Amino acid sequence: MNNFEFYNPTKILFGKGEIAKLKNELPKEAKILVLYGGGSIKKNGIYEQVTEALSHFEWMEFGGIPPNPEYQILVKALEVIKKENITYLLAVGGGSVIDGTKFLSSAALFEGEEPWDILKNKIRTEKGMPFGTILTLPATGSEMNSGAVVTNTETNEKLGMGGPGLFPQFSILDPSVVSSIPERQIANGLADSFTHVLEQYMTYPVDAILQDRFAESILSAILETAPKIMDNPSDYKTASNFMWNCTMALNGLIQKGVPTDWAIHAMGHELTAFYGIDHARTLAILTKSHYTYNLETKQEKLAQCAERVFGITEGDEKEKAEQCIEAIEEFFLSIGISTTLSSYTDEFEGTAQKIAKRFTERGWLAIGELGKLTPEHVEKIVEMSY
Amino acid sequence: MNNFEFYNPTKILFGKGEIAKLKNELPKEAKILVLYGGGSIKKNGIYEQVTEALSHFEWMEFGGIPPNPEYQILVKALEVIKKENITYLLAVGGGSVIDGTKFLSSAALFEGEEPWDILKNKIRTEKGMPFGTILTLPATGSEMNSGAVVTNTETNEKLGMGGPGLFPQFSILDPSVVSSIPERQIANGLADSFTHVLEQYMTYPVDAILQDRFAESILSAILETAPKIMDNPSDYKTASNFMWNCTMALNGLIQKGVPTDWAIHAMGHELTAFYGIDHARTLAILTKSHYTYNLETKQEKLAQCAERVFGITEGDEKEKAEQCIEAIEEFFLSIGISTTLSSYTDEFEGTAQKIAKRFTERGWLAIGELGKLTPEHVEKIVEMSY
Repeated sequence: MNNFEFYNPTKILFGKGEIAKLKNELPKEAKILVLYGGGSIKKNGIYEQVTEALSHFEWMEFGGIPPNPEYQILVKALEVIKKENITYLLAVGGGSVIDGTKFLSSAALFEGEEPWDILKNKIRTEKGMPFGTILTLPATGSEMNSGAVVTNTETNEKLGMGGPGLFPQFSILDPSVVSSIPERQIANGLADSFTHVLEQYMTYPVDAILQDRFAESILSAILETAPKIMDNPSDYKTASNFMWNCTMALNGLIQKGVPTDWAIHAMGHELTAFYGIDHARTLAILTKSHYTYNLETKQEKLAQCAERVFGITEGDEKEKAEQCIEAIEEFFLSIGISTTLSSYTDEFEGTAQKIAKRFTERGWLAIGELGKLTPEHVEKIVEMSY
Repeated sequence: MNNFEFYNPTKILFGKGEIAKLKNELPKEAKILVLYGGGSIKKNGIYEQVTEALSHFEWMEFGGIPPNPEYQILVKALEVIKKENITYLLAVGGGSVIDGTKFLSSAALFEGEEPWDILKNKIRTEKGMPFGTILTLPATGSEMNSGAVVTNTETNEKLGMGGPGLFPQFSILDPSVVSSIPERQIANGLADSFTHVLEQYMTYPVDAILQDRFAESILSAILETAPKIMDNPSDYKTASNFMWNCTMALNGLIQKGVPTDWAIHAMGHELTAFYGIDHARTLAILTKSHYTYNLETKQEKLAQCAERVFGITEGDEKEKAEQCIEAIEEFFLSIGISTTLSSYTDEFEGTAQKIAKRFTERGWLAIGELGKLTPEHVEKIVEMSY
């Protein structure tokens, strides 16, 4: 395996009733800004649990952070942080609220003029304002990693940021929250976490026996959990597995010592930026065409996945690899997620060219685990996904 | 699954050449005590790499920490720490040196009279003197957890200690060190790590899908790595897998949300205390009799392990469980580790009674995942292992 560094200091509090422990995790003298999204936490009882736990703290709130957290809205929260001398952030929400909070953690201590530069100039955050999270929507893994993605609606850009300063100090994961999540969001969480594992696994073998088996474990666990959680999100046991699968899918562990390929995410972010398609669904759109286009370089791992995750035993390596791609598509379809761009928009013509052009302009001239996918290749992959 | 808290802030630096990065991990103003064992690090080049990396630091050394780190020797190191105003500890060794360093980390800040009380009175260490480790012998997982075991040669006791203050700040894992490890120690590392996983997995199911699959992944990875590393410890790829398997086997992850059963370790420590048998070998002695004795309560997990780890498909659940126990014994034998007490000592008569008496005296009246194994049960299990 390759050399690696692994560091993940986020403390996880997992289980029913754990939100009450929030008060033990916050510094007593903190001045806290609670961040949340569209207000669902005020309907499902989480807001009450949080305010109860905060009763002896000084705190304010900032709601309305939208899916794909918008830079233009986040800068308003940043003004509050500065004006009110906030010292601690608490994200109560899903990946978008947590990612937005990470941006604010970084921006609050950023010394430059324009906070968007953190994303535009890929500035690594070594130190951010401390923050914790209460997860209400399992999907992105943001509750236990140090990365974030922010959308700029003025420039139609969706860019990533990160750094060791952006790990949550703690994250509270209470699977009870899953019962109130709409079906569409649960399907998104399943597809998002599944693809997170694929992007860290579906490359080429480097004799990393345990990393491969861990990745296959998460894929298998998601496949086992998916029909049950789609059928009954109120089942606590199933919800627990769904939640922990999503966290483990992107907390850094399985990508250590192995090559990774974030091409599906890179292309998918553009589909969200252009058409507002749910993040998870953009991944489902691009997976089949990406793997089919790169079958030769990914064949060995695709065949290994076919055998170990999907139990496919028939055929030679190439045939197993092809069956694996089919099985992945079937999984997306089984949870009600369409896998072609044309199912989401009628205006798909020219999308491939637009994305390739953007990659060229940004200097993203060679993506994928081998650093060989040029914008020309990207154009072909996106075209195959129409 | 059960509620849990997970927290592991140890930074891992993994791979060839990583020891040179030691200088970036230590505080510049630290006064460092380097701790090591019998001096093998002076023969295999590790001592030179460490001293080179320490060239701009103020440091001293304390060698001679024996396997099963002895309290009587550690208190001499504690005197050095106090006399020389040491502020940072660096363990260079295997589990014994690291465990000894953890004891010193705790004892250095302990305010009581007698540091043995930390172990005797089960005092949890919330804050210790900061320390890092350079691992030279993969086995115990101590490099990425907050527990330690210390032996008192005067009282013939081997007791555990721990707490959130005892995580190494960093651990450097360079698989190149494996090439100079004697075969006996490599076999011990395989048996120790394998049993660590078993103790966190071989209990009863609680619908923790991912934890089960992760545990099975580590068991499978150890089984795949074992014959290769026994055959050629100089193969870097195999050594990398051996090393990472051992760390992941006991860094806290797989035990979260599931019941655990540390009975084999509890009984095994007594065999080491009485007869000086290598820790890993005491585990191999007791595993078969423990699982056979508790077949009924562990049957479901034993059968699951039979299927998923050993590929056993024949028989009903009980038969699969029995085959699993046989397969585990075969694994120990395949790496040259005998599985009966009488292979290690002629004076085994009365051992079971002595251990049961000690458990009674200590008030350990109900061990195992169900809290139902009384000293009477322990006596029978140990007797079955003669």
